[in-house]
Amino acid sequence: MEGPVATLPSRWYNIVPDLPSPPPPPLHPATREPVGPEDLAPLFPADLIAQEVATDPYLEIPEEVRDVYRLWRPTPLRRAHRLEKALGTPARIYYKYEGVSPVGSHKPNTAVPQAFYNARQGIRRLTTETGAGQWGSALAFASSQFGLETEIWMVRASYDQKPYRRSMMELYGAKVHPSPSPLTTSGSKVLAEAPDSPGSLGIAISEAVEVAASSEDTRYALGSVLNHVLMHQTVIGEEALEQLTDINDPPDLIIGCTGGGSNFAGLAFPFLREKLKGRINPDFLAVEPAASPSFTRGRYAYDFGDTAGFTPLLKMHTLGHDFIPDPIHAGGLRYHGMAPLLSHIYDLDLFTAVAKPQRECFEAGVLFARTEGIVPAPEPTHALAAAIEEARRCTEPKVILTALCGHGHFDMTAYDRYLQGDLEDLSLSPDRIDRSLTRLP
Amino acid sequence: MEGPVATLPSRWYNIVPDLPSPPPPPLHPATREPVGPEDLAPLFPADLIAQEVATDPYLEIPEEVRDVYRLWRPTPLRRAHRLEKALGTPARIYYKYEGVSPVGSHKPNTAVPQAFYNARQGIRRLTTETGAGQWGSALAFASSQFGLETEIWMVRASYDQKPYRRSMMELYGAKVHPSPSPLTTSGSKVLAEAPDSPGSLGIAISEAVEVAASSEDTRYALGSVLNHVLMHQTVIGEEALEQLTDINDPPDLIIGCTGGGSNFAGLAFPFLREKLKGRINPDFLAVEPAASPSFTRGRYAYDFGDTAGFTPLLKMHTLGHDFIPDPIHAGGLRYHGMAPLLSHIYDLDLFTAVAKPQRECFEAGVLFARTEGIVPAPEPTHALAAAIEEARRCTEPKVILTALCGHGHFDMTAYDRYLQGDLEDLSLSPDRIDRSLTRLP
Repeated sequence: MEGPVATLPSRWYNIVPDLPSPPPPPLHPATREPVGPEDLAPLFPADLIAQEVATDPYLEIPEEVRDVYRLWRPTPLRRAHRLEKALGTPARIYYKYEGVSPVGSHKPNTAVPQAFYNARQGIRRLTTETGAGQWGSALAFASSQFGLETEIWMVRASYDQKPYRRSMMELYGAKVHPSPSPLTTSGSKVLAEAPDSPGSLGIAISEAVEVAASSEDTRYALGSVLNHVLMHQTVIGEEALEQLTDINDPPDLIIGCTGGGSNFAGLAFPFLREKLKGRINPDFLAVEPAASPSFTRGRYAYDFGDTAGFTPLLKMHTLGHDFIPDPIHAGGLRYHGMAPLLSHIYDLDLFTAVAKPQRECFEAGVLFARTEGIVPAPEPTHALAAAIEEARRCTEPKVILTALCGHGHFDMTAYDRYLQGDLEDLSLSPDRIDRSLTRLP
Repeated sequence: MEGPVATLPSRWYNIVPDLPSPPPPPLHPATREPVGPEDLAPLFPADLIAQEVATDPYLEIPEEVRDVYRLWRPTPLRRAHRLEKALGTPARIYYKYEGVSPVGSHKPNTAVPQAFYNARQGIRRLTTETGAGQWGSALAFASSQFGLETEIWMVRASYDQKPYRRSMMELYGAKVHPSPSPLTTSGSKVLAEAPDSPGSLGIAISEAVEVAASSEDTRYALGSVLNHVLMHQTVIGEEALEQLTDINDPPDLIIGCTGGGSNFAGLAFPFLREKLKGRINPDFLAVEPAASPSFTRGRYAYDFGDTAGFTPLLKMHTLGHDFIPDPIHAGGLRYHGMAPLLSHIYDLDLFTAVAKPQRECFEAGVLFARTEGIVPAPEPTHALAAAIEEARRCTEPKVILTALCGHGHFDMTAYDRYLQGDLEDLSLSPDRIDRSLTRLP
């Protein structure tokens, strides 16, 4: 594709040392003391644990990882001329498009290094959870590149809605189970209470963690939330920064959707570094689904990352670890919590957040497809909806940058339902959140 | 993506004047005289009719068309290092990847100019047929770019197998009918004889042509076969030629799959020009499905392009216009004939052809996905199967270039069936072809 210049990054960016204060550490649930590397060793390889607590602002990307990145990176940065024209806006809207990766989303940016470091440590098998299937496909692809086995717990709602994503994981050689599953203690427990449970990322994480923790040659891979995952995704923002610098058009507003937070962080962090250093001055906006509004309606508190309570306690914006979001089609955003690092930065007032109902998002997705051609996945339609709202409000030129983190070629049933008028906005009563927040650890 | 340099072509290449002899003209079925522009005017706009009989070797690409091409072009040319390693071959295998287009295939390369020229002539609506749905999605996308309506007849077998493709066409604003349909005389006739007909491209063409021919403000768009379509696709080969020249690695063998012929022609023609001018000396190999083997088992004769006999007579390699290929998953290759221009060049012995059964092709697709990451559509797995066979045979370095004309994200049910062992190779008895060839006009 033609477009502004980007080079494949040689380093990941770690924002922690550039922040005015460090994020609160994860705590051991029993002692409430910070967890050490030894607590994490059953779940993650040593290199990733080191990255999780890294204090250097930059970490070299291994050549083996860059070599796989080259299959689709650098990704295009495009200006949405046709969308602007349809909106009649003076705004200039740019989108960074991650849908050109083999699995059609930004997820391989972290799946590839995670598979690499595990393989280098001699691990035989990875377990993980997946919502919409994007993360599971990405890890299955990455594992196939480094000769690892993969076992994936897929949120039941998506397992049923998106059989093609399951086939894709299997095509890359992975085993896929619907979650909750009877294969684990945590899954069995949920099934005993709710045999028809649509599942949630929290439950699926519990299952994958449980299996990894109980097997010597198996580790767990997480597709978002953790510091090292957010850091791997900064290749998105570093490229976008170079591309906008190449055409000398610095952004005024940067918008990304948030589920666990890695897509938004990946785009935003390099620009936030430039802002903290006083070189540019953009605003940042995180857009979450109204069905899972952890920033806008959650509490900033220590909570478990999973439903069963296997993970360390993470200080994050949370709806409560047993909150199960309604089965919206943006399965990748159905998470009860938020990346602790992003939660901390939100608490520092360095960005704002807004929640969007799904019909407004699909409306934005259809407009984007009919103007720019690309069919966006349901997740980034949240960011597009906010970008469109902002562009419509503009009365003078403003540069908006958004993360188009994946294509929607696996999400056509959702668009079909929207086009048939069958898609409802689900209302979320405040007391449902209040109730789950009473159960914070 | 990183990779060798390509610039967006400013001209399409018309191979006709560079051939040792011109292809035989289309004939009027009644008079058996060459058809004139006036015969084609009810179906195509004047600019495309002029391109169909162009005698200049190059035609300027309008800036409005290049501007849409820029959404995904130039496309990447990649070396399949990982596949080579898995095969243990000394061959260097390159693939030109068209799956980065908004609809995931090479088809928009011609859909966009076709929509543009129709819109410029004041046409309101386009009709077309589609097999696997790739062409229909491409035309629906292109029409949405230029404000045209689109009505699409989709081969029943694919309509049932690939509901997501249908949703995608509707998302771009098109109307989609399964073919054969009761909406046309030709469709009704097929349904009367075979109510469960899986359909074919030939039948769907008849339906779309019938509707276009009977309406003043409606024209017909064809996704392959015709000279102007093949010419539009030469952007693929021009870019690939520049990219391989950039890294100074001229191809020894160029491989593409053939249904109607536009993908293979698009990649091959610019290299064939260089060969005819004595600058390089590659071989060319067309790969067709064993279920629809028009080159390897058809006859080079005048025949109709559609099943009902609405089109002019085209001299081409054909299995007979009422031959209905078995419902293999590579729906885009299920066509009874072959592009007349490509048929003529085959008759001149400028390339060879081979037919592949679908299981070998899916096996190649799975190997490609697990090594190179990209899941190929079933159509280009035919070319990959031949490339892999050739690479395995190589005892010394050889440069193989293949066209990866689309991704398989809409084809996961087919891969699923292959992985479950449910996919059969369908045998095609010679007398089925013999019988349909007795009905040549």
